[in-house]
Amino acid sequence: MYVIAAYDVSVERITKVHALLGQYLHRKQNSLFEGELTKSKLEELKIKLENMIDLGTDKVIIYCLPSISILDKICIGQQSDEKMMIM
Amino acid sequence: MYVIAAYDVSVERITKVHALLGQYLHRKQNSLFEGELTKSKLEELKIKLENMIDLGTDKVIIYCLPSISILDKICIGQQSDEKMMIM
Repeated sequence: MYVIAAYDVSVERITKVHALLGQYLHRKQNSLFEGELTKSKLEELKIKLENMIDLGTDKVIIYCLPSISILDKICIGQQSDEKMMIM
Repeated sequence: MYVIAAYDVSVERITKVHALLGQYLHRKQNSLFEGELTKSKLEELKIKLENMIDLGTDKVIIYCLPSISILDKICIGQQSDEKMMIM
């Protein structure tokens, strides 16, 4: 499946959460990651995140899509590995 | 269509970009927004973002999906309007 993950965590956990997500997905913005994951790898990542973050103050949202093909992605600004769209 | 938008902009433009996205979408994290948008409203938002950000240093990614029904969303941690999943 195709996964988009975004984190919003306290500053003392940013480095660890960032590094963990980077092991499974590709970084697209400071706190935004994307990539293909199997169901088992996603479960593994969820358990690691749950053990790593403070569930009362931190938050990670993971969007799961059956395929990247249904996703239309628009990137405005700073060009990285994304297609830049000038409207 | 259903839209997910994430920004990564210089600190001096955060407030403006945050406020603009908040006019069109619902805030889900500090720099993450979601919501239903018509094609014309999305075009309007894209133009405003392009005029607001520094295209050389800032970045906004907008993911467009035909429907929210194809999106499986997992929220780990801080409970807001999202369903919290404990694995």
